[in-house]
Amino acid sequence: MTVEAIAEGISSMSIRGAARIAEAAAGALVQEAKNYKGDNALEFEEHMRKCARKLLQTRPTAVSLKNGIRATLKPIFGPMGGEWTVEDLRKAIIEAGEAFLENAKRALESIAEYGSKRIKQGSVVMTHCNSNAALSVIEKAFEKGKIERVFATESRPWRQGHLTVRRLALKKIPVTLIVDSAVRHFINEMDAVVVGADTIASNGAVINKVGTSQIALCANEARVPVLVAAETFKFSPGTLEGELVEIEERDLGEVVDPKEFPGVDIANPVFDATPPDYVDVIITERGIISPHAAYQFAAEFGTDLP
Amino acid sequence: MTVEAIAEGISSMSIRGAARIAEAAAGALVQEAKNYKGDNALEFEEHMRKCARKLLQTRPTAVSLKNGIRATLKPIFGPMGGEWTVEDLRKAIIEAGEAFLENAKRALESIAEYGSKRIKQGSVVMTHCNSNAALSVIEKAFEKGKIERVFATESRPWRQGHLTVRRLALKKIPVTLIVDSAVRHFINEMDAVVVGADTIASNGAVINKVGTSQIALCANEARVPVLVAAETFKFSPGTLEGELVEIEERDLGEVVDPKEFPGVDIANPVFDATPPDYVDVIITERGIISPHAAYQFAAEFGTDLP
Amino acid sequence: MTVEAIAEGISSMSIRGAARIAEAAAGALVQEAKNYKGDNALEFEEHMRKCARKLLQTRPTAVSLKNGIRATLKPIFGPMGGEWTVEDLRKAIIEAGEAFLENAKRALESIAEYGSKRIKQGSVVMTHCNSNAALSVIEKAFEKGKIERVFATESRPWRQGHLTVRRLALKKIPVTLIVDSAVRHFINEMDAVVVGADTIASNGAVINKVGTSQIALCANEARVPVLVAAETFKFSPGTLEGELVEIEERDLGEVVDPKEFPGVDIANPVFDATPPDYVDVIITERGIISPHAAYQFAAEFGTDLP
Amino acid sequence: MTVEAIAEGISSMSIRGAARIAEAAAGALVQEAKNYKGDNALEFEEHMRKCARKLLQTRPTAVSLKNGIRATLKPIFGPMGGEWTVEDLRKAIIEAGEAFLENAKRALESIAEYGSKRIKQGSVVMTHCNSNAALSVIEKAFEKGKIERVFATESRPWRQGHLTVRRLALKKIPVTLIVDSAVRHFINEMDAVVVGADTIASNGAVINKVGTSQIALCANEARVPVLVAAETFKFSPGTLEGELVEIEERDLGEVVDPKEFPGVDIANPVFDATPPDYVDVIITERGIISPHAAYQFAAEFGTDLP
Amino acid sequence: MTVEAIAEGISSMSIRGAARIAEAAAGALVQEAKNYKGDNALEFEEHMRKCARKLLQTRPTAVSLKNGIRATLKPIFGPMGGEWTVEDLRKAIIEAGEAFLENAKRALESIAEYGSKRIKQGSVVMTHCNSNAALSVIEKAFEKGKIERVFATESRPWRQGHLTVRRLALKKIPVTLIVDSAVRHFINEMDAVVVGADTIASNGAVINKVGTSQIALCANEARVPVLVAAETFKFSPGTLEGELVEIEERDLGEVVDPKEFPGVDIANPVFDATPPDYVDVIITERGIISPHAAYQFAAEFGTDLP
Amino acid sequence: MTVEAIAEGISSMSIRGAARIAEAAAGALVQEAKNYKGDNALEFEEHMRKCARKLLQTRPTAVSLKNGIRATLKPIFGPMGGEWTVEDLRKAIIEAGEAFLENAKRALESIAEYGSKRIKQGSVVMTHCNSNAALSVIEKAFEKGKIERVFATESRPWRQGHLTVRRLALKKIPVTLIVDSAVRHFINEMDAVVVGADTIASNGAVINKVGTSQIALCANEARVPVLVAAETFKFSPGTLEGELVEIEERDLGEVVDPKEFPGVDIANPVFDATPPDYVDVIITERGIISPHAAYQFAAEFGTDLP
Repeated sequence: MTVEAIAEGISSMSIRGAARIAEAAAGALVQEAKNYKGDNALEFEEHMRKCARKLLQTRPTAVSLKNGIRATLKPIFGPMGGEWTVEDLRKAIIEAGEAFLENAKRALESIAEYGSKRIKQGSVVMTHCNSNAALSVIEKAFEKGKIERVFATESRPWRQGHLTVRRLALKKIPVTLIVDSAVRHFINEMDAVVVGADTIASNGAVINKVGTSQIALCANEARVPVLVAAETFKFSPGTLEGELVEIEERDLGEVVDPKEFPGVDIANPVFDATPPDYVDVIITERGIISPHAAYQFAAEFGTDLP
Repeated sequence: MTVEAIAEGISSMSIRGAARIAEAAAGALVQEAKNYKGDNALEFEEHMRKCARKLLQTRPTAVSLKNGIRATLKPIFGPMGGEWTVEDLRKAIIEAGEAFLENAKRALESIAEYGSKRIKQGSVVMTHCNSNAALSVIEKAFEKGKIERVFATESRPWRQGHLTVRRLALKKIPVTLIVDSAVRHFINEMDAVVVGADTIASNGAVINKVGTSQIALCANEARVPVLVAAETFKFSPGTLEGELVEIEERDLGEVVDPKEFPGVDIANPVFDATPPDYVDVIITERGIISPHAAYQFAAEFGTDLP
Repeated sequence: MTVEAIAEGISSMSIRGAARIAEAAAGALVQEAKNYKGDNALEFEEHMRKCARKLLQTRPTAVSLKNGIRATLKPIFGPMGGEWTVEDLRKAIIEAGEAFLENAKRALESIAEYGSKRIKQGSVVMTHCNSNAALSVIEKAFEKGKIERVFATESRPWRQGHLTVRRLALKKIPVTLIVDSAVRHFINEMDAVVVGADTIASNGAVINKVGTSQIALCANEARVPVLVAAETFKFSPGTLEGELVEIEERDLGEVVDPKEFPGVDIANPVFDATPPDYVDVIITERGIISPHAAYQFAAEFGTDLP
Repeated sequence: MTVEAIAEGISSMSIRGAARIAEAAAGALVQEAKNYKGDNALEFEEHMRKCARKLLQTRPTAVSLKNGIRATLKPIFGPMGGEWTVEDLRKAIIEAGEAFLENAKRALESIAEYGSKRIKQGSVVMTHCNSNAALSVIEKAFEKGKIERVFATESRPWRQGHLTVRRLALKKIPVTLIVDSAVRHFINEMDAVVVGADTIASNGAVINKVGTSQIALCANEARVPVLVAAETFKFSPGTLEGELVEIEERDLGEVVDPKEFPGVDIANPVFDATPPDYVDVIITERGIISPHAAYQFAAEFGTDLP
Repeated sequence: MTVEAIAEGISSMSIRGAARIAEAAAGALVQEAKNYKGDNALEFEEHMRKCARKLLQTRPTAVSLKNGIRATLKPIFGPMGGEWTVEDLRKAIIEAGEAFLENAKRALESIAEYGSKRIKQGSVVMTHCNSNAALSVIEKAFEKGKIERVFATESRPWRQGHLTVRRLALKKIPVTLIVDSAVRHFINEMDAVVVGADTIASNGAVINKVGTSQIALCANEARVPVLVAAETFKFSPGTLEGELVEIEERDLGEVVDPKEFPGVDIANPVFDATPPDYVDVIITERGIISPHAAYQFAAEFGTDLP
Repeated sequence: MTVEAIAEGISSMSIRGAARIAEAAAGALVQEAKNYKGDNALEFEEHMRKCARKLLQTRPTAVSLKNGIRATLKPIFGPMGGEWTVEDLRKAIIEAGEAFLENAKRALESIAEYGSKRIKQGSVVMTHCNSNAALSVIEKAFEKGKIERVFATESRPWRQGHLTVRRLALKKIPVTLIVDSAVRHFINEMDAVVVGADTIASNGAVINKVGTSQIALCANEARVPVLVAAETFKFSPGTLEGELVEIEERDLGEVVDPKEFPGVDIANPVFDATPPDYVDVIITERGIISPHAAYQFAAEFGTDLP
């Protein structure tokens, strides 16, 4: 698909989820590089930067998107002189982008494998929202015969919990749907909480679907371990330089129809921040770490962008 | 209304709320006593006991219902011989029942008055579900010019939060509706949490709408005081003798239509238990106490029933 | 048995356990009153006081012993003039002592009944040492089909855990013996901790077999409720006036033979103090209370002794 | 001294301290009653009410002052008809006032005695500000040979810590003065914290000299017990009905000379509120209680005033 | 000694302790390499792998054993072609193994030196079980005149505490033996807890002798620092990839003779896991770190094995 | 200025503050290198070492001083043979020293920039003492329109808070001065705490002006984030090898005039240690990290000194 189309898809939320938008953007840039017709390296570079900007504007606060673009366009952000030809650059970009995509795919497999080992035999686990990384861990652990049941929260306002329970039920994994308010009531019966992440800050804070932080708090109160499954491209280099992860506020109509509630304000934050102290481990494709060790992974991607 | 009709109303949930069902039952028993035609005191007594049993069966775990019936029929549970006439008994029951109803009404006013004093000037407060006692406190504090804004949770699955925000908006109280998952995200901006109670156990645990305990946990983490507004008839004498407050499990269809989710289990607990350590004060019509002092109030109502 | 013999038995530890020594002392005093031959009321009173002192000296820090003696000799500690005859006094003492003994017996039954209601269906519970009150609760809950398994600590140095596991195994209750160090390793699998008490202080602190406080701490960390089963005569009136509950230090040979460990000191405290914040409820024969409500029960027994 | 003079003394802070102002007011009312010349009982009553109002206005938020006045004028707040003569009333007021004064004196002795028993042999204790009740406990414990050293905070802005260290040094008690910021640095070396109280709320919160709550927090973090020494007349009946204890804001010049700091605001709260969870025991003349049991003592004094 | 003999010794527990088994295995492999007679490099490699497997099977979950073998056989796990001769390989293995042994020895000295600096003058410290690394720290601190007394737990079921107290008493270090249940009773008198580690996971969790985690919990509650002394070869690379550290369950007869307890189950876990939040520092030969920084050390050893 | 003069200035405290003394020392060494007249490289090296020692002796426990000297004299601490000429060395030292000074200046700017991004719109923040790094963050955030008000503690005994409030008032930043005891009273109104650091230990503990740790504790209790602003040269390499950061005890006369307080001891610690768990982030010029990641920064500077 073209950059145009992908940008449109991300904007309209038909493409969503931290990993999926990163991968879509990387794919679009690779495609763009392949299709580019000109023969002036500087013009090509400028064109790619423009594409990058267009993609970035669709979700300017999405760290994974930034990291996917950074990884793909690394050849033109480094100290390259004008001696490069269009072909050189094209090849470099295609390689970098495909490496990113391949790594992302393998990352998910490694996370599933590593994370599943952390689940104990006979576990009942809770998950929130609809994270591909988290569900991969759970499904792999189920394949190994370790999961007895999954509790999934509804995850208002979008109710992505419905997607989650359907996916798990299809795989014959015993699953119980609960409302978001019932988390603390059931948490003592859990052996682990497994969630994904939208962004991980350099001090280890985990930004994820709103509600994650109170589940982690409840789990922590009850000594239930909290496992966060996240590819390394979810670590935010910007937070190293102080950027606060902006909590997106989405359409109020997702909560109720404002017209039916005259005089009532509505707040609809999409994410919240879970402090590192409530997270036992972050499961990445490079290994399982304490959230307090996030610094190293965040530092790896550069922070400059076109 | 007749005992019959009231029992029907409670069963079908058209009459609901811990205080309202207690008052409806007391009123029905008073009416029944007024209308009784016979002249045999023992038969009258037996008749009233039967009415009590019928009312009790509508919500067998509702402490306030039990306490309202106990209070009204106290004359026939005490050590009364057969020397009493129907008239004596009738008068005693009417008096006891009306006293209960009058007290309940005044209790609400006292709670509103006492509780409103605990709210500081310029407060932003959070509430959960749709508690008459809690909202009375908030409204009285607003009248006194102390409330800046109220955050109200949606309170899934029934969304009683919708009732709450409408009631507050009608009274021109600035109010913001949030989903249940967003509590921890906003809790640091709150000056107090004000909730009601369904039942208070003899060790001070507060049984209330599911979700209350995780709000209290979040508030406690952020040093935001938690105020529970509850009439003394919400204190459970049975818990003194070890009764666990049963957490009612309600119709699964309130969460989702089970038919649309084949292979998915649903759990729908109505209440949860908040440990006394997360509650700063209980506001009763007899004064403001530490939840750890609940024992005395629970001990006051007898535990025997017809 | 005579006061002499009972005093001997308590001293030599052949009679031990907070409840048992109280009952033995009360019984001995009743017997003594029955057998007294003289006819001078003042002499009789003096004689009984002497017996009380002798009994008290056997375990001067045992609160239940004090309370048992107080309860039995209440007639002579109150404002009685010399107008009483020996017969009057004898009758009063026998009545008071028998009431204490009868109450103690019924207390155990009530505690078992009340406490068993607090245990949830399918529970795995942990107990420590060998408390009659705690085991009564567990056994009653097992009879009701609620207990799946009991974990019992060894309870070094005396290993009273051996008595506990044998008693439970005889009743066909599934039981697992663990060393004291393994408590935190298993605590997450528990649904409740049930222990007894030697003494309860006026601020709600629970003095019990050494190790109880770290079990309670572990349980508290994991949100596992801690239930303390204790007759009201275990509440210490002296702590109201500031008495610290003395932690008895027992024979070092119970830990190791000191001769085999030259140059090594040994410490052997018998009890430790669990702060009220780590105790969910105290189960007494008068009802289930927050430990913070201990004041009332402690205040009930007078603090003066002969 | 006359009511006039005492009111003056309290206003000007030459008489201060929660206990001292209560006693001065009670003494002044007794004196006033003695000196009253008229013979109309209603006029006398009205006169005494006027005196009470004058005294109350000097420190309208001081609970001990209110309680001292209430205790002394109890005869005219009760249900007395006009049949009383001036002599009857005078006698009743003098008796009530003298009883209050006598009780206050004995209360201090009991608190010293009870509290000193709670101090372990060889203790190092910390105190804050300059509380008569707290220092009585410490001095009595020192007399018994239990105190090794006292750490006293400076207690800015007034530096009442200077009074404390001088008083203790005079009694040859080893004492170390530290700045208020050094509390946490030293708290691990302490065996107890002993402080007084200005007011105790019905839910057990302790209002005392600003800084008390952070000392209690530090002590709690380090498992050092916090003992609050307070006569029962420091318990606030008004808090039962929701009154928030108002935190007096005093003269900014006590912090710095505002003229030397143009553009700088200054805040000077006199008290702060320590939550009951950070207080181990309250030592009163009626016994040692959990702060959560404060309700009973607060309920004892009526809440109506002239 | 031969690989055979060492494997036997580890199996039978005559060689035990995380460091000792690693060193024994490294020594055996060095010896084996020295003695090898053949001249085919590939056969030699295969032979060494076989030895490694034999050694590994003796304690398949022991991380230090794996790391010792990995370190010694690094030459054959790396990317070596067939161009190497037996002599080349032999030399490389001997060098690698001797380096490991030399490092292990020096590691202990560094740990003792670094750790002893963390002990404050006049300290009373607690230790658990019988860790060479922990005792080295304590003894070095004692040499420097900083230790006043050591409290050592019995460490049931094996009572390795007996070895500890004897070793310390021989060195004239004042030492007190306590039962495992008495830890919380004494913890407030401690200035530090010093323990060893069997394994350290990549998120900083410390696996050590059962009981360690509840000592750390008690210390944490009382703000007593917990120091873990551990060579870097105790860090588990496998945990990076999700391996849960398996908690070995040992012979039940170590707890009681099962035959004497018919109908009684016994559980005998050897280790437990202390969460990183309860550990102040890990003292390694490469410096003192937060447990949350464990990732780096765990990553250093490769995870592949023959 | 000469080494002599700078050493004098540091000793007499006319030059103070962790950053300022490091910079003064580096500057003096650069100057010294520039002025050196001889032509024997070994003598030159020896001379510079002597200068370093003189500077170090002025504040032997100041980590930043050590690190500044280390950074400047790096050329002579590395493995340099005698082949170097005086000119070579001079040039290397000047370069190293100027790089350190330039870095220090730029570090402050980066910290201000990074830290200011962490402050939310409309924030009220608290600071303690008079840290250049912390104030730079606050002032930059104010420039960006994010700060509503600053609360500054007095910071007894030196009252550096006076410097802070004057500096902020000059920049028209609304500022409120409070006594050190009032921190917990106001902490709930804060959106962040921003402080500097004197030294950061390898496990993440922050050594700073006495009182910092109790502010951090209060903030932590109220879920208010604690930001520590510190250049990387404040990280202590010595703590890696176990050095305890010595808490300087300063002149008692800073607290009170000891002569006016006969029989009273005074303690005057300058710093205290804040555990890493109470610090949300450390803002360095290299990025924002969890305190638990301190190890890496501490390891960067060598630990050997002339």
